[in-house]
Amino acid sequence: MKKILYIFVLLTFAIVGNLHAEDALPSWNDGKTKQSIITFVEQVTDPNSKSYVKTEERIAVFDNDGTLWAEKPIYFQLEFVKDRILELAPSRPEWKTQQPFKAVLENDNKALAESGYDGLLELLMTTHAGMTQAQFQDIVKQWLATAKHPRFNRPYTELVYQPMLELLTYLRANGFKTYIVSGGGIEFMRPWTEQVYGIPPEQVVGSSIKTEFEMRDGKPVIVRQAEIDFIDDKEGKPVGINSHIGRRPIAAFGNSDGDLQMLQWTAAGYGPSFMLFVYHTDAKREWAYDKDSHIGRLDKGLIKAEKNGWTVVDMKNDWKTVFPFQAQ
Amino acid sequence: MKKILYIFVLLTFAIVGNLHAEDALPSWNDGKTKQSIITFVEQVTDPNSKSYVKTEERIAVFDNDGTLWAEKPIYFQLEFVKDRILELAPSRPEWKTQQPFKAVLENDNKALAESGYDGLLELLMTTHAGMTQAQFQDIVKQWLATAKHPRFNRPYTELVYQPMLELLTYLRANGFKTYIVSGGGIEFMRPWTEQVYGIPPEQVVGSSIKTEFEMRDGKPVIVRQAEIDFIDDKEGKPVGINSHIGRRPIAAFGNSDGDLQMLQWTAAGYGPSFMLFVYHTDAKREWAYDKDSHIGRLDKGLIKAEKNGWTVVDMKNDWKTVFPFQAQ
Repeated sequence: MKKILYIFVLLTFAIVGNLHAEDALPSWNDGKTKQSIITFVEQVTDPNSKSYVKTEERIAVFDNDGTLWAEKPIYFQLEFVKDRILELAPSRPEWKTQQPFKAVLENDNKALAESGYDGLLELLMTTHAGMTQAQFQDIVKQWLATAKHPRFNRPYTELVYQPMLELLTYLRANGFKTYIVSGGGIEFMRPWTEQVYGIPPEQVVGSSIKTEFEMRDGKPVIVRQAEIDFIDDKEGKPVGINSHIGRRPIAAFGNSDGDLQMLQWTAAGYGPSFMLFVYHTDAKREWAYDKDSHIGRLDKGLIKAEKNGWTVVDMKNDWKTVFPFQAQ
Repeated sequence: MKKILYIFVLLTFAIVGNLHAEDALPSWNDGKTKQSIITFVEQVTDPNSKSYVKTEERIAVFDNDGTLWAEKPIYFQLEFVKDRILELAPSRPEWKTQQPFKAVLENDNKALAESGYDGLLELLMTTHAGMTQAQFQDIVKQWLATAKHPRFNRPYTELVYQPMLELLTYLRANGFKTYIVSGGGIEFMRPWTEQVYGIPPEQVVGSSIKTEFEMRDGKPVIVRQAEIDFIDDKEGKPVGINSHIGRRPIAAFGNSDGDLQMLQWTAAGYGPSFMLFVYHTDAKREWAYDKDSHIGRLDKGLIKAEKNGWTVVDMKNDWKTVFPFQAQ
């Protein structure tokens, strides 16, 4: 038995070693951005390095919107909300004259913006609450199977960043546990993150509404309530990380000021840490935006990144490919 | 590379196969209880069985108090509360005349009971809130290192059930991910569950108070607030499971009516499932209690278990050893 285990360990090293030898990040152009990632991973996985981190503490957290998949022209979850309102409208004739629903039905973005936070909340609750978790998951899956992105005319799950998919795989091959920590809805993400990112539902942290356990016809169900439970954004991200993971990440990846506190929390750990912002600089292949964008605003984050020496991905110059379907 | 992977897979099977051959549950007496566990595990891990379950879906959830460690004479977290009040008392002279603190200082259980839910809540918040998460973890670790159980005069972390430790190891060796889902405080458990049970902080679900992210002297901290966030008991357990794990367990282990909904939720899945209650029947080695106990009441649960054919552990007859220190 002991001998078998010994061979087992040797083979494991042979396979892991092999991952180092090949280029695990082929869609990243060579340069200091790519090198900063590789240097960090090699240090924390080298048992002879003073920066070595035990496998169980190799926690990496990723924002989703704008970090793993695109977020323009609006967050994809808002597209879902709009599509869902259109789908439900035939059975709700009163919406024709009632804001904020009227604005959605008439595609009137000005009126929609004027409905403000309360309007958005009403749309969210109408489309996200009042059904069981299982029913909501089916609705999300059905939408993803049919909806298309307005610019690229492809399913939203194809609007993921090829270099980030490679990064997720590279980190996991080096013993990291990869988590999503997103301002988006936790149950909006869970039905597809395992298939698309290799991230299982138990490693998804997000915003949530309250849920309740009920027995219906002798069968237990979890029912979604029209009440906000938790907002996993800005100061909420370290709180969500603490609640779901219970230990501090050693690597954090974001793209906006909404991710700043998550990166600060990660940077404040005792050991080595790695912080990265994806900077959207590529109007041709994707979008270019920063401090003046309402969605994915990156302003303070850039300043902090420069001050603290965090890595900033210049999408235009650092990424060979943005989306998988653009690969040459 | 392909050949190496092939050998790797073969060796993995050789090692896993070996675990079946030996007795992975030596502290369980042979009989139908032990056999029900083994039969379930063998079915869901056998790729040729129609009950086969993919590794990523092998989620097992365990209650803590009364299921993994003891809960008598009172929940150990309440012992922590009382000890902590005694420790803080010198700096709080007003407590000498102020309930519910007076009751704790005078060890007056009648007055303590009379202070009711509000009294308990005040004691909980006084001892659990107002510090950072890191500070609270240190307080818990310090307490566990010094406090002793009143009957057994041993650290509380030695009051864990040897057969359940073996069960946790056995399940993990068969590809299960083991979770705690407890009514106890999530941050009260996380500092020690990895060492004691092999369950990492990210696989601990429990009751919680609200927390907030703050910058203090330029350093980020998470501060514990004197406000209940979530009660992970009864109907709360399936809600906590859904929030933290996001998929339904296929095995659930509890010991009281507070675990009933968790077992019902587990039983209602599409595939195979295993539900077990630990029944405290051993007054000599541990305690004997059921429907008349204020702590760990087991009443409805036993009725449902019989009706549904769930496994019930008769502690006295099914367990060779209860606590590790009682091992022959």
